[in-house]
Parts: sequence; structure tokens; C-alpha cells
Amino acid sequence: MSTPLCIFDTTLRDGTQGEGISLTAEDKVKIALKLDALGVHYIEGGNPGSNSKDIEFFRRVRELKLQAKLTAFGSTRRKNSICEHDVNLKHLTESGAQAATLVGKSWDFHVHTALQTTLDENLAMIYESLAYVKNSGMEALFDAEHFFDGYKANPEYALAALKKAKDAGAAWIVLCDTNGGTLPGEISEIVSRVVKVIDAPIGIHTHNDSELAVANTLAAITAGARHIQGTINGYGERCGNANLCSILPTLQLKMGYSCVSDDQLKMLTSVARYVSEIANVHMPVNQPYVGNAAFAHKGGIHVSAIMKDSKTYEHIEPHLVGNKQRVLVSELAGQSNILSKAQEMGLDVNPESMKSRQVIDRIKELEHQGYQFEGADASLELLLRDAYGGSVQEFTVDSFKIMVEKTAGQMVTEAIVKISVAGEQVYTVAEGNGPVNALDNALRKALVQFYPGIRDVHLSDYKVRVLDEKDATAAKVRVLIESTDFKDTWSTVGVSSNVIEASWEALIDSIRYSLRVNPRIMDSAPLIRLCT
Amino acid sequence: MSTPLCIFDTTLRDGTQGEGISLTAEDKVKIALKLDALGVHYIEGGNPGSNSKDIEFFRRVRELKLQAKLTAFGSTRRKNSICEHDVNLKHLTESGAQAATLVGKSWDFHVHTALQTTLDENLAMIYESLAYVKNSGMEALFDAEHFFDGYKANPEYALAALKKAKDAGAAWIVLCDTNGGTLPGEISEIVSRVVKVIDAPIGIHTHNDSELAVANTLAAITAGARHIQGTINGYGERCGNANLCSILPTLQLKMGYSCVSDDQLKMLTSVARYVSEIANVHMPVNQPYVGNAAFAHKGGIHVSAIMKDSKTYEHIEPHLVGNKQRVLVSELAGQSNILSKAQEMGLDVNPESMKSRQVIDRIKELEHQGYQFEGADASLELLLRDAYGGSVQEFTVDSFKIMVEKTAGQMVTEAIVKISVAGEQVYTVAEGNGPVNALDNALRKALVQFYPGIRDVHLSDYKVRVLDEKDATAAKVRVLIESTDFKDTWSTVGVSSNVIEASWEALIDSIRYSLRVNPRIMDSAPLIRLCT
Repeated sequence: MSTPLCIFDTTLRDGTQGEGISLTAEDKVKIALKLDALGVHYIEGGNPGSNSKDIEFFRRVRELKLQAKLTAFGSTRRKNSICEHDVNLKHLTESGAQAATLVGKSWDFHVHTALQTTLDENLAMIYESLAYVKNSGMEALFDAEHFFDGYKANPEYALAALKKAKDAGAAWIVLCDTNGGTLPGEISEIVSRVVKVIDAPIGIHTHNDSELAVANTLAAITAGARHIQGTINGYGERCGNANLCSILPTLQLKMGYSCVSDDQLKMLTSVARYVSEIANVHMPVNQPYVGNAAFAHKGGIHVSAIMKDSKTYEHIEPHLVGNKQRVLVSELAGQSNILSKAQEMGLDVNPESMKSRQVIDRIKELEHQGYQFEGADASLELLLRDAYGGSVQEFTVDSFKIMVEKTAGQMVTEAIVKISVAGEQVYTVAEGNGPVNALDNALRKALVQFYPGIRDVHLSDYKVRVLDEKDATAAKVRVLIESTDFKDTWSTVGVSSNVIEASWEALIDSIRYSLRVNPRIMDSAPLIRLCT
Repeated sequence: MSTPLCIFDTTLRDGTQGEGISLTAEDKVKIALKLDALGVHYIEGGNPGSNSKDIEFFRRVRELKLQAKLTAFGSTRRKNSICEHDVNLKHLTESGAQAATLVGKSWDFHVHTALQTTLDENLAMIYESLAYVKNSGMEALFDAEHFFDGYKANPEYALAALKKAKDAGAAWIVLCDTNGGTLPGEISEIVSRVVKVIDAPIGIHTHNDSELAVANTLAAITAGARHIQGTINGYGERCGNANLCSILPTLQLKMGYSCVSDDQLKMLTSVARYVSEIANVHMPVNQPYVGNAAFAHKGGIHVSAIMKDSKTYEHIEPHLVGNKQRVLVSELAGQSNILSKAQEMGLDVNPESMKSRQVIDRIKELEHQGYQFEGADASLELLLRDAYGGSVQEFTVDSFKIMVEKTAGQMVTEAIVKISVAGEQVYTVAEGNGPVNALDNALRKALVQFYPGIRDVHLSDYKVRVLDEKDATAAKVRVLIESTDFKDTWSTVGVSSNVIEASWEALIDSIRYSLRVNPRIMDSAPLIRLCT
């Protein structure tokens, strides 16, 4: 029987302190629904005292009747005042949240330097604020800010702060490594001491400034803490908060604790990627457990081993966290990578054949030019299908022209495209919000009469990468385009010293891929059958 | 007297296994020089048996006479053969490196499944291969692949593999957590056992699949290991290797070990950023110690506290690792952020003034539109200088036009710009590798006669970010441009639904900033003095 742990998500509050992270009330509602489905026990939504956006969020999310306890964040009352006159505490109790987290000082240095008040007044602020929130009918949690630094400097005072929180009836007393500088050994030692002397449920809140937030959280749990505060993808101020996407699977799959159900754990990868989409923050491919490269194999020797048994180079089964194994094609690739990639595609490939040699050489040559197929599976698949399956030309491009003009604040962008498809020449012009969008519009206008299904395809992401930083706007650029038809998603790549030409290449690949590979397009386009 | 540790950098070997990381021989030489300056003790340059690029690297780097020991990587000999016939071992001994790392199996499961040979043959492969390398006059190191998984499955056999390496005279026996699945507690327990029973210098090599590579390395050192294998920025296969940029400062500043000199530690941030530039991999802003946000403060309360004493929210002094404190302006910003930002710029700001209110509201409005000043200090500085220092128009743009045409494989891009400067209207046309480059060229052509110093300014990076993924090429985009005059570097931002217009905004800001703020430009442009 595994020990249950309480998961407290603060992506919507502490997470938004991260550089480059900014969420609208609407974004926050979307994320809250995902977090609730993932099965976290508390969702800290924001600080209703600090901005109206958070007040709106609490108003809207109340109506959703989440399983998780909706939690509002605030500080202990101002010094030398009373709770009844504290505007922030008022906002907190009026937020409609079921629980409130109050952050208070437990490091004497901070009481003197930041608060600039007496140690006793700070203890009174903690006790009175928690009691006030509790009397309002909410559950009260205490975040002991800088607890570990405080304990190292003045253990008696740090513990006295916790005792006040306990006496005021805090449901959880959460030890915070606010500056992220504490080491796992110190965490175990201090938490073990706290759980002995403080007779209340203890939680842990760590930051990643020493790249130890996950290890510190695990150390605290092993030492007796039972409540974890963290964020999706480890978003948070400076170097971020403890990353729940790494903590949950380790606790549940390796340490025998129970946090969420096994089915909920399988949602982890999709939740992590959804949140990074909404937050509009690029997710590092190498993120543990949920990253796109977390179970990606590049070296030829590794690839041949995982093809015998994936346990040889994978610490868990990817599906347990909703991720999957990938084989990367790169200049380090042995034939085995190409082989297994082509097999994934159901192509009949003889690794020893002359053709396989040529394909590998071609891929190496393109990668040398700056193409990167690791992030563009669809372009690679077209390349392999053209090589092994026989080349098919759905259409050919004869020429295109773009005009962008700005006068008196007016901006006009037009594209003219001349293509040949099924023996006919088609000549179209379209406007767009930018040159690539105009090209995209003109090309669709030309193709839709032949391939109606193309209406469903749209571009979901567009990335430009300068390959040689010596002279950015004159340098070679790589364009990655992600496309979707609301069912599948695929990525294509183009490389050129001209961003328009690189975008054009990726655009053509994306459309060719949708015509070649995507069944929904083909169903709706009888013509395509003739040419495949 | 602090215990010295041996630092083994494998950025150039294991690091290049990371997704999206690919280094030319030239790149590797550049990085090797930086690593040597940083003071690492071993530089593992690659696998001369696997590709010719690495052979060239070893040939070129030999002549540089580095302080660090140049190390080549390879595997133990093939099964059922002799070292004298092993091509990879031959390449290794001919590489000209001073040391060689041989990876061998220590997990019985791998011997059976991956090598498909007997346990005894694997032990012979380890002993004979290390002895062969040592007899060739090189120092021999042993990487015990999957040691921790192997020890958990069959401790006797895992230890037997290490004993063979010791008997063959390995200088270091390195315990590898190849799959990155081991927990810190297991690492301490197993390493403590190994240092008791194996009388040889022990090293640690961890991977980050559970986000524990740093913690696991620290645990191994505490348990008695004295040699650390890792990479700059934690590059490496799947989720990466142990990140030396986090391990070095923690060991040296917090745990009392000595790895490199204090002056060398101050190079850490610049080395980390240099390597990410050469590897052409974006460095996460929130990377511990060396990231751009590692000491960045966003929340208003935090900012007012660090202005009293930076120790309140910083775990170390940033300069110890060559990083610096930043104050971010964002919608969470209190006045204190703006205040300290403007003070950095030497502007005389009254936080209570009506003007300060308007500036803050303006910044919030722009951020709402998608501008992000966190990554565009120069655009923010222009905004603040215009507000507090009085607006100056170095030039105004009347109109521009861009034409891109592709016919028969030929690509032509032209830009026409009409601007007014110092009372004159200037009308220029220029070609470019792409629309933004053509605009850049036309604009310089128009301005250089008035501001000759502008010749030194060039764009060093160009990033395009889609702000709303609903429809990529039609969505609002944010363009970030980084510029340099070979002395200073500055970043500017533009936002529009048209990538050309957004690029244009950022381009104009970059040039205005160089004219307004950059002394070298102003020296060479007497005219500018008239208008500032």
C-alpha cells in the first residue's frame, strides 16, 4: 500500500513569475482545466490582491466546479496594522477560492532587512493573518518563505514561525527554499528535524537555482514531508520552481508513492506540451520524461540496442508518462536509424542496398547544408518515400513573385504563383498578412480545385532560425513549419540564405506531405489517387 | 584545505549526441580552447574510430598544446577477436591524444542482450583493451556503462568488471548512470560500497533523464568519487549529461571542493554562452547560474527587497560565476522595476510623477500587444529615453517597397527605401539575400552618408516568434533582432501580423539605438551631436 502525497500546483501563480511567461485570465482557465484532469489536489490560481486579471480568473473558474481545491495566494498582513484593514487579505477572502496560501517570513534577516519590523511583530502577522483567513471559512496554508536559509541562520526563530502557523490552524505548513540555494543533504536534515518538533502536516516548495529543485523535493519527501508545491515544466522566477513533470513520475514509478492515478500520469506529456503552448514558451526537447527527445535515440549503437530491447537505453517505458520513443536521423546515424525509420513508415528497405547508401549520403549532405530532419519528420518521410517508394510530383512550381509595400502607414502584401498541376497551368494571386502567408494563400487558391481536402490543412507554427550568426539577416536561415489538419500534425524544413525561399521550401513540403500521406486529404481528392 | 576534484569535459563527445547538436571540426577546436581556459583537466574530443571529422579534430588540436589532457573515446574490442586486429582501437592509439576512455559493459543484461556474448568474454574485452591502450603509451580510463543498473541487477559481476579495469591499470574507473534512471540515495549507497572494495580512483558520469544528473554527481562526490564527467550546458543524448555549469559552482562555492581557480569560475557564464552560440543551440533563459534569467527579478516585492540587499533573493553573488543581476520589466512590474531600470540608464526619474505612471501604462499596453522588453533592452531604453530624456528623431521613414521574384531557379530580392534625415529626403534601392536583409542594406545605404559609424553595426541574430499559434503564417509575430558593433551587443523588438513590418520596427530601433546610445557611432558622426 503506497503512501499518498498531496500535489499543489502553482503554475498559475509562481509559474507566471518566470521570465517571458504571461497568461491571460482565459489562458489560466484553460490550464486549470488540464491541471484538474491531471489530478493535482490544489490549484493555486494567482494573487487576487495584486491584479484584476486574477480576480477575473477566480470569478470564472469558480463556476467550473473543479475537483482540485482552488487556492488564492497572498501575504501576511502589513506590519503594525490589523487584518480587518488589510486590502490584500480582503481580496483573498472575497476571491471565492476554497483555500488560501499566505506567505510569511521565517528568516530573521528578512524580517529586519525586507520587512523592516521586529521579530515579534512578524510572528503576530503570521498568527493573525492565518487565523483571519481561517475564520472567513477558507482553508489556510502557510508558505514559510526562505525557511531553510532562516533555519541555518536562526533555527529557533524559524521554528517559532512554524509554531505560530500551527497554532493558527494552518492545514499545511510549507517549507520554502525561496532562493534555491539549499543542498539535498541540508534539506533532509532540516526537514527530518521539523517533522519531529512541529506536529502538523509539512509541505515542500523548492526553486531550481542550483539545478537541485527536483532532488530537494524528493529529499524532503523521504524525510517526511507529504505535500509538494511545484509547477508544470518547472516554470517560475529566475531558474524556475520544482518541476512537477519530473517529480510525479519519479515518486510514482520509482519511489512507490501515489500522487495521481496511472491513467492521469499517462496525460503528463500532453499536459506539459499544452501548457507550454498556452504559455507560448518553447519546451526544451531534452526535458526529462515529457520532452520530445526524452526517449530519442541518435547514436547508431544505441539504436541497434533498443531495437533488440528498449530497456537497454530507456529508464522507464515512455508510454507510462504518455511520451514515445523516437529514432533520430543525423550525421551520427548508422544505417540502423534509417532502417528503423523507414520501417516505421512501412517501406521495404534493404539496408545493404546501393540505394540505402545513396539515401544516407544524401541525408548527410543535406544536414551538412543546414537541414535538420530531427525536427522535420515529414520532410524526411517525403525524402525516404521519394527514394524508396518512387517519386511522385503532385504539382510543379513554375514561378512566384511577392510585393510588399508600405506607404503612409498602409501595408500591402501580395503574392503571385504560377504552378502546373495534373497537366494544367494555374496562375493565381492572393493577399496576405505577410509574404509567407500571401504565398500560402496563393498556393492554396491554385491547388484547392484539385485537392479540396487541402482546406482542412493549416500551418500551426512557423520558426526561423539563423544558422550562421556572422551576419543575421544575410546568413543562411532554417525555417521549420508545423502543419495540422486538426487530426494529425507534421513538421517540414527549408534552408536558404533567403528566408522567403526557405519558407517556400517548407511550405511546399508541408502541402506535398498532406497530399501524399494524410488519408483525410486523399479521400477528398480523387485525383491524387491517380498519381500515387 | 579543500579537496581537489578532477573535471572531465565530454561536451565534444557525449555532448554531440544531443538532439540538434552538431559540431564541425573547426567548432570543436574553438570550444576546446575555451574549455582549456576554463581549466577542466580532461577534454574528450570525440571518437576517432567513428568518423573522420574527429580524426581531423585530434590532428588540429594536438598542435595547440593545451593544458588539459586531450582524450579520445572508443569501445572495448569486438567480441572473439584480438586488440591488434581492432580498427577502432587502432584509430584510438593513432589519434595523438594523451588519454583514451574505453567504454565497456558492466551490466550482465547488456552483455547478453546488446553484445550477445558471454560474461567471461566481456571481462576479457575490458582487460585486454585497457592493457592494449596503456601499452601504446596512453593513459587509459574505463567508463563502466550502465554500472548502477548493473550493480542493482548483479553486484558481483558489476564489481568484477571494475576489478578487471583496475588490474589492467586504468587511471580512472568511471561509474556511469547511462540511462539516467538512478536516484541520489542509490548513488550514495553504491558509490560508498565501490570506493571500499575497489582500490582505484573512482569517477562519476550521470545523465539527466530523471532531472537528477547534478544531484547524482554531488551524491557520488560526497560518497568518495573524485572525478566528474559532464558537459557544458548539460548537452547530451536524450535529456542530456550532468551539467558542469551547475556542478562546478555548487562544489566550489557551497561544498568546499576545488575544481578550477576562482578566476576561471568567473569565466563560466561566458563559456556557457559561447558554447551555446557555437553549437547553435538556444540557451534557456532560466538555466541555473549562467542563464540570462538566473539572477533576474520580476516581481515588484522581490525587486524592492534586492534593492535593499541582493542577498534577500540571490543564493550567490552573480559575479562569482561571471553572471549579473537583472531587473525585468513586465506586467507584474511595480514601479520599483522601472525606477531601477531607468536609474541603470542614469535617467533622473521621479517614481511618483505623472510621467512615470504614463510610462508604466504604455509598457503594460505594449506588452499586452505582444512586445516583450525582457528580451529587448535596447527598445526599452529608447522608450524610456524618449519619455524622460525628450524624443529625438534621427530620421523618419516615408515609405518602403520590397520585391521578391523567383523564376527558373533564380531568386531576386530588392528593397526601395524613402527616408528623411537632417532635413533631406533620401531615396535608395538595394538587393539582399532576403527581404529584411534588402531593407537593412537600403536603409544603411541611405544613412551611412550622415552617420559613417553605422558601417560597424551589424545584426548578429534574428528571431521570429509566432505569438498566436492558431494560424501560423497569418498570426501576429514578434521579431527580436540582436545587433553588435564588435564591442557592445543590444536587442530590439518589433511586433506585427506582418513579419516584414515587425522586422522593420526592430531594425529601426536597432539603428536608432546605435545612433543614440553607442559612443563609437556618435564619435564618427558629428551630425548626430546636433540632434541629441
